[in-house]
Amino acid sequence: MTPTKRVYLFQKNAADGNASMRDLLGGKGANLAEMSNLGLPVPPGFTIPTNECLHFARSGDALDESLKKEVSQAIDKLGQIMDATFGSPEKPLLVSVRSGARASMPGMMDTILNLGMNDETCAGLGRLTDNLRFALDTYRRFIEMFATVVDGVDRHLFEDLLTEQKTKAGVKEDSDLNADQLQNVVTSFQEIYEKETSRKFPQDPKEQLWSAISAVFQSWGSARAKKYREIHKIPDDWGTAVNICTMVYGNMGPTSGTGVCFTRNPSTGENSFYGEYLINAQGEDVVAGVRTPRPLPSLQEELPAAYAQLEEVRHKLERHYGDVQDIEFTIQEESLYLLQTRNAKRTTAAALKIATSFVEEGILTREEALLRVNADELERLLHPTLDPRAHRQVLARGLPASPGAVAGKVVFTAAEAEIWATRGEDVILVREETSPEDIGGMHASKGFLTARGGMTSHAAVVARQMGKTCVAGCSSMRISVAKKSMMLGSHELKEGDWITLEGSTGEVMLGKVATQQASLGEDIKTLLAWSQETQDMRVRANADTPSDAKTARSFGAQGIGLCRTEHMFFDEDRLPLVRQMILAKNNDERTSALDRLLPHQQGDFEQLLETMSGYPVTIRLLDPPLHEFLPHPQEDLSHLAELFGTSEGDLRDRIGQLAEQNPMLGHRGCRLGITQPAIYEMQVRAITRATVNCRKKGGQPLPEIMIPLVGLASELKWLRDRLESVCKEELSQEGLNDQVVPFGTMIEVPRAALTADEIANHADFFSFGTNDLTQTTFGFSRDDSASFLRVYEKEAILPIDPFSKIDASGVGKLLKMTTKLGRETKGDLKIGICGEQAGDPESIRFLQELQLSYVSCSPFRVPIAQLATAQAALLSRKNH
Amino acid sequence: MTPTKRVYLFQKNAADGNASMRDLLGGKGANLAEMSNLGLPVPPGFTIPTNECLHFARSGDALDESLKKEVSQAIDKLGQIMDATFGSPEKPLLVSVRSGARASMPGMMDTILNLGMNDETCAGLGRLTDNLRFALDTYRRFIEMFATVVDGVDRHLFEDLLTEQKTKAGVKEDSDLNADQLQNVVTSFQEIYEKETSRKFPQDPKEQLWSAISAVFQSWGSARAKKYREIHKIPDDWGTAVNICTMVYGNMGPTSGTGVCFTRNPSTGENSFYGEYLINAQGEDVVAGVRTPRPLPSLQEELPAAYAQLEEVRHKLERHYGDVQDIEFTIQEESLYLLQTRNAKRTTAAALKIATSFVEEGILTREEALLRVNADELERLLHPTLDPRAHRQVLARGLPASPGAVAGKVVFTAAEAEIWATRGEDVILVREETSPEDIGGMHASKGFLTARGGMTSHAAVVARQMGKTCVAGCSSMRISVAKKSMMLGSHELKEGDWITLEGSTGEVMLGKVATQQASLGEDIKTLLAWSQETQDMRVRANADTPSDAKTARSFGAQGIGLCRTEHMFFDEDRLPLVRQMILAKNNDERTSALDRLLPHQQGDFEQLLETMSGYPVTIRLLDPPLHEFLPHPQEDLSHLAELFGTSEGDLRDRIGQLAEQNPMLGHRGCRLGITQPAIYEMQVRAITRATVNCRKKGGQPLPEIMIPLVGLASELKWLRDRLESVCKEELSQEGLNDQVVPFGTMIEVPRAALTADEIANHADFFSFGTNDLTQTTFGFSRDDSASFLRVYEKEAILPIDPFSKIDASGVGKLLKMTTKLGRETKGDLKIGICGEQAGDPESIRFLQELQLSYVSCSPFRVPIAQLATAQAALLSRKNH
Repeated sequence: MTPTKRVYLFQKNAADGNASMRDLLGGKGANLAEMSNLGLPVPPGFTIPTNECLHFARSGDALDESLKKEVSQAIDKLGQIMDATFGSPEKPLLVSVRSGARASMPGMMDTILNLGMNDETCAGLGRLTDNLRFALDTYRRFIEMFATVVDGVDRHLFEDLLTEQKTKAGVKEDSDLNADQLQNVVTSFQEIYEKETSRKFPQDPKEQLWSAISAVFQSWGSARAKKYREIHKIPDDWGTAVNICTMVYGNMGPTSGTGVCFTRNPSTGENSFYGEYLINAQGEDVVAGVRTPRPLPSLQEELPAAYAQLEEVRHKLERHYGDVQDIEFTIQEESLYLLQTRNAKRTTAAALKIATSFVEEGILTREEALLRVNADELERLLHPTLDPRAHRQVLARGLPASPGAVAGKVVFTAAEAEIWATRGEDVILVREETSPEDIGGMHASKGFLTARGGMTSHAAVVARQMGKTCVAGCSSMRISVAKKSMMLGSHELKEGDWITLEGSTGEVMLGKVATQQASLGEDIKTLLAWSQETQDMRVRANADTPSDAKTARSFGAQGIGLCRTEHMFFDEDRLPLVRQMILAKNNDERTSALDRLLPHQQGDFEQLLETMSGYPVTIRLLDPPLHEFLPHPQEDLSHLAELFGTSEGDLRDRIGQLAEQNPMLGHRGCRLGITQPAIYEMQVRAITRATVNCRKKGGQPLPEIMIPLVGLASELKWLRDRLESVCKEELSQEGLNDQVVPFGTMIEVPRAALTADEIANHADFFSFGTNDLTQTTFGFSRDDSASFLRVYEKEAILPIDPFSKIDASGVGKLLKMTTKLGRETKGDLKIGICGEQAGDPESIRFLQELQLSYVSCSPFRVPIAQLATAQAALLSRKNH
Repeated sequence: MTPTKRVYLFQKNAADGNASMRDLLGGKGANLAEMSNLGLPVPPGFTIPTNECLHFARSGDALDESLKKEVSQAIDKLGQIMDATFGSPEKPLLVSVRSGARASMPGMMDTILNLGMNDETCAGLGRLTDNLRFALDTYRRFIEMFATVVDGVDRHLFEDLLTEQKTKAGVKEDSDLNADQLQNVVTSFQEIYEKETSRKFPQDPKEQLWSAISAVFQSWGSARAKKYREIHKIPDDWGTAVNICTMVYGNMGPTSGTGVCFTRNPSTGENSFYGEYLINAQGEDVVAGVRTPRPLPSLQEELPAAYAQLEEVRHKLERHYGDVQDIEFTIQEESLYLLQTRNAKRTTAAALKIATSFVEEGILTREEALLRVNADELERLLHPTLDPRAHRQVLARGLPASPGAVAGKVVFTAAEAEIWATRGEDVILVREETSPEDIGGMHASKGFLTARGGMTSHAAVVARQMGKTCVAGCSSMRISVAKKSMMLGSHELKEGDWITLEGSTGEVMLGKVATQQASLGEDIKTLLAWSQETQDMRVRANADTPSDAKTARSFGAQGIGLCRTEHMFFDEDRLPLVRQMILAKNNDERTSALDRLLPHQQGDFEQLLETMSGYPVTIRLLDPPLHEFLPHPQEDLSHLAELFGTSEGDLRDRIGQLAEQNPMLGHRGCRLGITQPAIYEMQVRAITRATVNCRKKGGQPLPEIMIPLVGLASELKWLRDRLESVCKEELSQEGLNDQVVPFGTMIEVPRAALTADEIANHADFFSFGTNDLTQTTFGFSRDDSASFLRVYEKEAILPIDPFSKIDASGVGKLLKMTTKLGRETKGDLKIGICGEQAGDPESIRFLQELQLSYVSCSPFRVPIAQLATAQAALLSRKNH
């Protein structure tokens, strides 16, 4: 249903619209109305609403007569207010015509100024203002804008002619041309127009007006605008409004001018007035960069009265909108006019500073301030960034797997990485793909570059967890480990050559590009403290080592949601024992290896529990398939064979027997726990002993034991029965019969979600393992999906990466089902998530609706998750 | 609530119970009542119902006084009927006491005969019958039974003494002992009893009775019975009834006897009276095998009157029960008495014959007959079986992956299999596991034996489809391909040694064990025809080649539900082209290979469509990951490199780039279709051209194009848009613009099930790929799960194999969700299933409830599925 009103007038203290009518009037129109209502100096005007744009398109790009009639009446109304007449040679009324959609859309037609100008009104304006130069300057501007915007004439034709005229006149700036010279410009511009469009420049102001309005409406359907909407997911049926506004003139002489300003510094957030202006100019001059604008403070000296008005407006608008404003203004003979205001774009650092200052200044509540910061952007503050002034030569582009910017020397094996690092070199580890065996070398490297693997490949996950930079799946790279070289496009790089990675964009650059280090400022700390007061879901970190745990605590983690015990198995002094455990010929051999591993594990857990004293620590029992711990088939096995007292051939056979076609779906997780119960028993014993010791030292250890990969309630029951008695046995030896260690499970295969009601009978908590759950729900291996997911993204078959953002309609359905079924069995079941998506704000909003107990992400994403959980809680309270 | 009645009497034409009261009276009691009501000669008696058993257990194994009172009254009633008195020395009443649960339970106490016998009644019975020998014979039988059954005395003590006495007396059979000798036996038996139980043999008949009833009730709770119930999933709260029945005496002399008979031959189903009997004996003599029973026809000569009565009973019971009966009878001085009747166990062949004959004879309707045959057992008729008389030495046991019994010479590579087969040898292919590359060798072999892989491994699936025998996952086997030998336990076997596989049990036997060939008889054909008239779901076959399709048709398949196009790619003349297509450096190379593959595929499809003219043929586009078609990394690549005009190193690199960590979750199915659209385009072109040609030749081709591995509606839409236009282009070239080829998709990843409503918008049909769906729902790789699934079965963690039977609570939930969501979008959406489980009767019952359109299984399971779908439909109609 089209509203009957087709034109919304605005004038000082009396506008038909207001800021809340953004959908109908567009952002620009709504704010012009709002400012008018506030009594601010906005030139009178009116807005044709967005629904007229759709009506126009449906009518075959025709303006209907009744709209024209209403617009004509509105123009007359403006004439009455301004004591002028549209098209009158005596007192001509000129207007600006500007587009304005709900969301800012650079893909659309923007502005035509000075509409209503023709040969007669130009002469009239000259007479009226006693300033022919001004009138001609205004006319030549109008001809250029109308020609380029409405008729698509090439702007350069006009620019070149103007330059030619200036050269001829021997002046540098447009404003130095005198009336005669400008008359020539006008005449030449009209000639250009006639030549390019094969018709005379239109002299009828109404005809000009209808053409301009039609052009704005048509620009909504332009290819450029459509593409922009597709990328930014803006619906086609929003349409654009048209704003028609009485002209005020910044080009009226030395006491006139035009400018843009920000109510605070948009780079730093500092409370200082920030902007630039040009004297004797119109708006497009600032943008075009023909003359160099002056910084705002100079205006205070040049036109102090106008500046004082602007200062007043600045505070009024900031307080009124509760946000930093980006303002366009014009000064006509010392009087200030506002042409536009909108919330200012800003850097992340500025956003933080602004949010906290606004609360201090009483402009915003804490809750409002929390919602003003984009959580996703926080990550930028936590990693080094490229120095924007540095030169960069991009050789290739991979997936932006872990943010940060880092330079280092190329090495091709984990072993080399460690050697170079001990020499004090910065290295980038370059691999086809990384594996758990590479951990040592990865630790020693500044960043990783891989040819294969996606956003959640081994390299990517480890990188994000370690807070290192990673570019993964760089498919144009060809590595020859043997030759210690690689091809990046046509560029050959050898071991030791410098490259720089930018992990937020996936760029791989030649040489050492300078970077800037970031630090966690006071503003973010304040915001995170507020977040914790506001959030419903807690934020934990995924951390395997005491050092990871320390980082996590420093970023405000409220516990550990996932400690992967297997990462402790790769240490140099443990791996041989792990291998012996796996390859044991009999139980005695296995038990002996496990007995020797136990004190190592116990020590790790003790440190971890101490670091996180008072906070829950969820420890996942061994998960990956055993052969991940085994030597590669090509590796020299003689040493290992000797160690185990067997032949190399025998060893090779036993390793071969453990090989699997699809290890991700193989003999791992709780399956291993059931077929070789001694492993989990050892781990539970180590956890319990560590807990006892930590408590003896006065700590508050809160371990939670998590069993991975459960798909059947019977798996969990079987293991829990067995492991809980190990736990009780250890505790009772210490006389701690009243202590209880909670047991829970990962929900990471679809069957666990489908039977969550049964599984909940045996679980004290659930934790969504959304990495594996996404893999099995889609049937995508995260190691192998990069090859087709890139095509999927390009073809818009799968617009999101489901490994970084929860796939709401597929995986999300299973999460919903799980929480519903699980809490049907146990109303107070604790449910968390420890997959990659736990650190993603959009996913966190989804999880808020499921009322999860906590999210657990990599330490470096904890601040993001803290803010995002607070925002999600606030939005949810608003909606319910 | 306990019913007030605690004793159910039965006597000729007047019983408290009937056959429908099986739950309360147990099988035996219900049938005794039923036969009494029919006026058949059943000795009068009564049944203590099953709920009393539970009451007994709850009362701490005590018979309560009120029950004893009612039983005593019932005994008095029997006395009145028989004109005898329990415990009376003049006219003693003797009874039998037998257990009888709802289901037959060999784990329980069975029978005590002649209860009521003591020193006095023995003497009295001797006087009354004027046959002391008979009385003593009866007494000694009672003592032995009571002692062994009630007090658990070792039976051998009695048997040994009896043998001793017979030796002493110089006679061969029990019935040859005279009264004096039997008196000695009785005395000695009483001494044994006293010695073993430390008390005198009880002389009070009531005391005997209470002990016997208590023993029956206690036997329900025995460890043996509990174990049996656990295995056969019989609830503990069913309880057993106790049947107390007036004794009739088969041991009263030469005109008395006892026997068992079947109303038809239980081995063949032939309509001939079948059974055996002993003269002058009681029931346990037949079972004990002390004397050799005579075949039933002899009875006609020995005791013609009794035989005539039996013949009459035979027909009466068969017609009354509508099933072949297994009858126990006793003849007392030429009068027939019936002690028990029940449905007879039979072979599969007999079951078929009986079902069809009963319909012919008007005893059963077709529907009733269809429900009488166990569909699972049909498989036995379709594969050769081991000759039961042959000697067998079992060396190892694997998984029963594909039924049949087959002997052959061991070979260790597919290539050797082909060489030996062309020499006319029968070979068994023995491999760690098979791969698609082995297809040629598998075709040439009689059966497959693998060390790894489960019931749905490559070897198992191919075997079932080809109807070959397979034993998979034989983990005790150690193969050395290099030495051409293997170890099976401690046994070494070399290439060329004979082994025999039994695919229904998983046994691997040494040498060549003789087998029997099976054939599809008339009875099964009749039954299958009736099945097709009755079923709601159609039965299709999974068949890839015209020869598979012919087999499928001969077994009654109503279409092809899954033709895997990739199997056509492994032919010797095609593989190089396929490899060229995959390894192509550019589009030209790829197109050239595809152009040359097209006529091959078209030819295959043409033959397939002709063979199945008039029936739907669902053709699945290429599914497996491309590297399955590539040479193994170890293989000599020089020839291939030459063929492709490249270097071996280059080729090796390109092959390496295609390798995947988890190919099952990798770049395959529709993902490949999207990244390399030319492949599917070629296939669709081939299908369409084949259809056109087939129609030109007068056939009725009904192809359906199926897109595999869809998880996103957008995948299907993208492909369908593209492929349908290829289809239309081909059809319009032939002027067939009105023809439509349906497009559908597999539902085989959880996300497809979860978003079936969206996917249904772009699909004409769904087909459940429950193999892959089971893999992804559980997160089990079928190639790698054997190692832990065996432990799961042993520990009762997963009692079923989800790859052979639909996992109702997990995978089944997704199937339900899919049908519901899919049909919300399209009410008439055709939905089938083509996974392994489609041939399993239990799974078919589950699918019936989902109202699927069809099931599609391997050709050799088609008959089973035909019968199972009919049964499922009948059961469903009964329940709704």
